[in-house]
Amino acid sequence: MHKTKAEILTIGDEILYGHILDTNSQWISTELDNIGIKVVRKTTIGDKREELLSAFHDAEQRADVVLITGGLGPTNDDLTKPCLAEYFNCEIKMHEQALLEVSEFFKSKGRELTEVNRLQAALPECCTMLSNKIGTAPGMWFERNGKVFVSMPGIPREMQLMMTKEVIPRIKNVFSTDIIYHKIIKTIGIGESWLADMIKGWEATLPPHIGLAYLPSLGQVKLRLTAVGEDQEQLVDEVEEKITSLKPLIGKYIYGYNRDQIEAVVGKMLAGQEKTLAIAESCTGGYLSHMITSVAGSSAYYRGSVIPYHNDHKIDLLGVKENTLKENGAVSEQTVIEMSNRVREKFNADIGVATSGVAGPGGGTPEKPVGTVWIAYADGNDTVAKKLQLWKDREINIKASAIAVLNLIRISLLKTIEIKN
Amino acid sequence: MHKTKAEILTIGDEILYGHILDTNSQWISTELDNIGIKVVRKTTIGDKREELLSAFHDAEQRADVVLITGGLGPTNDDLTKPCLAEYFNCEIKMHEQALLEVSEFFKSKGRELTEVNRLQAALPECCTMLSNKIGTAPGMWFERNGKVFVSMPGIPREMQLMMTKEVIPRIKNVFSTDIIYHKIIKTIGIGESWLADMIKGWEATLPPHIGLAYLPSLGQVKLRLTAVGEDQEQLVDEVEEKITSLKPLIGKYIYGYNRDQIEAVVGKMLAGQEKTLAIAESCTGGYLSHMITSVAGSSAYYRGSVIPYHNDHKIDLLGVKENTLKENGAVSEQTVIEMSNRVREKFNADIGVATSGVAGPGGGTPEKPVGTVWIAYADGNDTVAKKLQLWKDREINIKASAIAVLNLIRISLLKTIEIKN
Repeated sequence: MHKTKAEILTIGDEILYGHILDTNSQWISTELDNIGIKVVRKTTIGDKREELLSAFHDAEQRADVVLITGGLGPTNDDLTKPCLAEYFNCEIKMHEQALLEVSEFFKSKGRELTEVNRLQAALPECCTMLSNKIGTAPGMWFERNGKVFVSMPGIPREMQLMMTKEVIPRIKNVFSTDIIYHKIIKTIGIGESWLADMIKGWEATLPPHIGLAYLPSLGQVKLRLTAVGEDQEQLVDEVEEKITSLKPLIGKYIYGYNRDQIEAVVGKMLAGQEKTLAIAESCTGGYLSHMITSVAGSSAYYRGSVIPYHNDHKIDLLGVKENTLKENGAVSEQTVIEMSNRVREKFNADIGVATSGVAGPGGGTPEKPVGTVWIAYADGNDTVAKKLQLWKDREINIKASAIAVLNLIRISLLKTIEIKN
Repeated sequence: MHKTKAEILTIGDEILYGHILDTNSQWISTELDNIGIKVVRKTTIGDKREELLSAFHDAEQRADVVLITGGLGPTNDDLTKPCLAEYFNCEIKMHEQALLEVSEFFKSKGRELTEVNRLQAALPECCTMLSNKIGTAPGMWFERNGKVFVSMPGIPREMQLMMTKEVIPRIKNVFSTDIIYHKIIKTIGIGESWLADMIKGWEATLPPHIGLAYLPSLGQVKLRLTAVGEDQEQLVDEVEEKITSLKPLIGKYIYGYNRDQIEAVVGKMLAGQEKTLAIAESCTGGYLSHMITSVAGSSAYYRGSVIPYHNDHKIDLLGVKENTLKENGAVSEQTVIEMSNRVREKFNADIGVATSGVAGPGGGTPEKPVGTVWIAYADGNDTVAKKLQLWKDREINIKASAIAVLNLIRISLLKTIEIKN
């Protein structure tokens, strides 16, 4: 069976020069991976005719599907459309349906269609138009000698909608795709090397067609199992069986699978146990609240936050005792415990959590260097506080602290379930 | 004069499959750009011998410098080192200096040097070793027929340190680099097409060796001027002259240049005018506070926030009148104005800002559909409120609202300066 191969071609000087970060090709890879298509190469080139034509040519030699993003803007520096017309040897003409759609798009925004945007509806005759419901540049689908070229806008949300609605269904139609089954096991609160040590015996039992990869990120390690074969159901069963035998070893560190996000998992636990949450964050400065509220529907369990960045407001707004701050400082077990209890009361919530630390780069002392962070959890019965010794980087310290608090909530809610059982 | 061209080669299945996002190549591009070296192509390939060898070959045809990241790990799936040895036709032997450095690295961590890590110190004989002070895989520098290949670890901080300390100085030594001068003009609060319309006359005056690109992102448009020539000083003067003639046209939308961030620019204005800020955020759920506190030193002007996610707390914690909420709803001009005034008082701050809206995906009504957001600014003299009609996407609505508030603060602080003058 021939395995369908894909290449991704990202076009734009702004990516080449490093002015913007290309997130599109990662997103596209994941989508193709889900339908069993392997990306064999990603290439970024600039807005230059010869570069585009030679990249088209090279990609066609290696791959069955070539997915192109970028270079579809209305201005003269955007060359993807004319180069594709040249490569596929056909004329660019006004496309009636595309014109209708771009006109409607402008109408819906209450704006006049400009001449420049009208020209975006002109397309190479030999392509199939791909609708862009949320932007002005339509996509293009070319087929020749069993090879497919797809051109999409570079704006992530436009590309993503087009990919989901128009491109993936067409690709599935044209190519019979091979089976690759991935499952990602998400762990939190344990380092990569400790994890590796705990599961090395289990790892040795994996058959050759199931691969394991460690993917560490801030405070988390993802374990990716990749099974390759011909029978989807059999692959799924084999992988699930392996996960079942993994759970007794590291179960308490596993918070979810695949696209599960720790903030959504914690939200689901709160909603399931009908508990409400309030947050007092100092060094995390709003990031923890942002993680919680980035989840749609979080208003069901999240009551609100106080961010008493200035110490005065830890006292006057939150109700931490002046003495506690004086005797122990803001970055201390005592202060963070009081913060978690007081915020719980203020918002009349079941659970209160709090952060206080030295995010950096300034503010460190020999006793409390940059990266010293206290976090706490309080639910009326239990109060738990934990000291984190993090890094020198402000952004990393903020994010790692917020993730550690989410894990603290998760562990406490797990205990509640255990007690109930 | 021959212009030095670079290519970046990123190696790793995990990038190809979309399991991790490649941020290295953007970082490398920017560094090369700063020394006038143009990246002409970026390529990502998997951990496969034939792929590596053919990518080396192709890159050598096009570029003078090939920068490679990844594939240097201690395990068998990492092929960069053996493939480079094969490509440059030389043996891999234990490198005494590399062994010394990796031994010292392990010693400094209080750990034993394992056999696997010892082997990382074996290098192709024909390369120059590049020190890795913070990791276990040394880098490699190859030179042949005037072309340079550099291999670096894929871990961003290891790569960055090696690039800065070892690679950039060597590249400058080998190649006389050409001059490319970029300046990015950052605008906020105006759409790309309006901007283009306002400056089209100015754009027509740009000489052929100065290019202009529009780089839109959420609520912002960056204008990038790229000047190419031989005399750095002359290029800088020409670009600055063009910017001077641009300011009368769009000055009020320009908040900064190059790496300036709107949150840092607003912070600097607050600090400069010795004003303090308090935030009441509802629909933005902590993201606005996070933007403000992501700036090091923000504690100088930022007092704190209340996030009264649940309406009860808009009343009991913030002091919005019950009647205001009843009569107008939470997402209204009246509520958001009261929120901004009350939070200002609560935190004893000079300026209070507030957000209240329907972030989505749920919670929309015919009168207040998803994407309806009210934002407000109050400073004791002036109160300004603004309605935003945003999109259907929760994440985008949260971020775009926060950015709109930052612009509201910026505009108000600009006015203060004008009045003072």
